[in-house]
Amino acid sequence: MILYELDGKEDFRFSPHVWKINMTLLHKGWTSNIERIPVKFSDKSPIEEKGFNTVPVLVDKEKWIGDSIKIAEYLENEYPERPSVFGDETAKNTTFILNKFIDYNFITSFARIIVGDIYNHIHPDDKEYFKVTREEMMGSTIEEISNTSKQRIPSLQKQLEPFRKILKENPYIAGSQPMYCDYILFGFFMWARCSSPKTLLDPTDPIREWRERMLDLYGGYARKARGYKDT
Amino acid sequence: MILYELDGKEDFRFSPHVWKINMTLLHKGWTSNIERIPVKFSDKSPIEEKGFNTVPVLVDKEKWIGDSIKIAEYLENEYPERPSVFGDETAKNTTFILNKFIDYNFITSFARIIVGDIYNHIHPDDKEYFKVTREEMMGSTIEEISNTSKQRIPSLQKQLEPFRKILKENPYIAGSQPMYCDYILFGFFMWARCSSPKTLLDPTDPIREWRERMLDLYGGYARKARGYKDT
Repeated sequence: MILYELDGKEDFRFSPHVWKINMTLLHKGWTSNIERIPVKFSDKSPIEEKGFNTVPVLVDKEKWIGDSIKIAEYLENEYPERPSVFGDETAKNTTFILNKFIDYNFITSFARIIVGDIYNHIHPDDKEYFKVTREEMMGSTIEEISNTSKQRIPSLQKQLEPFRKILKENPYIAGSQPMYCDYILFGFFMWARCSSPKTLLDPTDPIREWRERMLDLYGGYARKARGYKDT
Repeated sequence: MILYELDGKEDFRFSPHVWKINMTLLHKGWTSNIERIPVKFSDKSPIEEKGFNTVPVLVDKEKWIGDSIKIAEYLENEYPERPSVFGDETAKNTTFILNKFIDYNFITSFARIIVGDIYNHIHPDDKEYFKVTREEMMGSTIEEISNTSKQRIPSLQKQLEPFRKILKENPYIAGSQPMYCDYILFGFFMWARCSSPKTLLDPTDPIREWRERMLDLYGGYARKARGYKDT
């Protein structure tokens, strides 16, 4: 298998969507035999030739698959003997819908807190590309957004409320075991952890305890990634 | 069993949260032996005495349960021999989270389209209470909101996108059979249908086709409720 992932500075691997797939591959028992090819924001030629514009892209059995949830669905269907990452039919469908809600609701709210920190961890070749595209997306300069980023943490914490009730009563969002619905939100926290020193969660937040459990999974794979302790 | 529900004008029963429970009770096979007690916005004394402020409230085996998803959870746990309305552990948890996201994202966007129509279907005794409380909630008069309500339909349609992909590929949100995750969104469409003549969905929208299937369930129970054809 080949996984095209993001090329950050000095092994800071912060792409939230790649993290969803890192966790899915471990969930399904792939710990080795994955060739990882870093792709730059400023040079996507290895994946663009196949019609893709974003990472992750997975190549398996000569098939090319892009978009994190499509990759997870491909692995689920292609390797039915491995542990399910979705659960039953209803869990799979509700996870797909949650994926869209989480991406839609949380990309902006995380980005407005960490974009300045991400900029500091971008591969030098990509800095100009990142600055131009992100400032256009966000309608403001990275410096301006960074000036108010800490003030935005309480509103992110409030926005996370739907997960808090479940995580007060369950070790994982999926219940007794982690599933793709956990990896979606965790991807966003790894985005922050691998780029930002800011503290996003209060010490007593059940989401923080869940994040610690997620960091411990699969021999502490995510905890060992280069990042910051508190995010 | 006793179900405390909303007392609309001339049998227009528009409460979205009561609809979630109507569908859940039918899903679990209760078609009779449910005593329905209408509660007025302006006089909630039958439920307030027990500490509740909103309908639905269910009374079963001398236990009083409020909040639609808590009622569904109670029925699921108390009657395990009846058909599950949630699915597996993961589906149950993701449905709980979706319930919060849907309530949070869609109450306002539906309300800003239909609040003037709801006002026309409020029990006469409740009109003053409804006008005062809703205008405070929405920070504007009902008339002002109604003036721009039709312009808001395209943005609601766009907001429904996460469901569209699933409903292109599945007859129900839950997959091959309807579950609580279907009843959550359907409750909002019944809120509109039982109060508003506005057309919310385009003729070719897969969400519209799903809504037709939902209206047909359980002998066309929801279709027979007093309402408007197109919402």
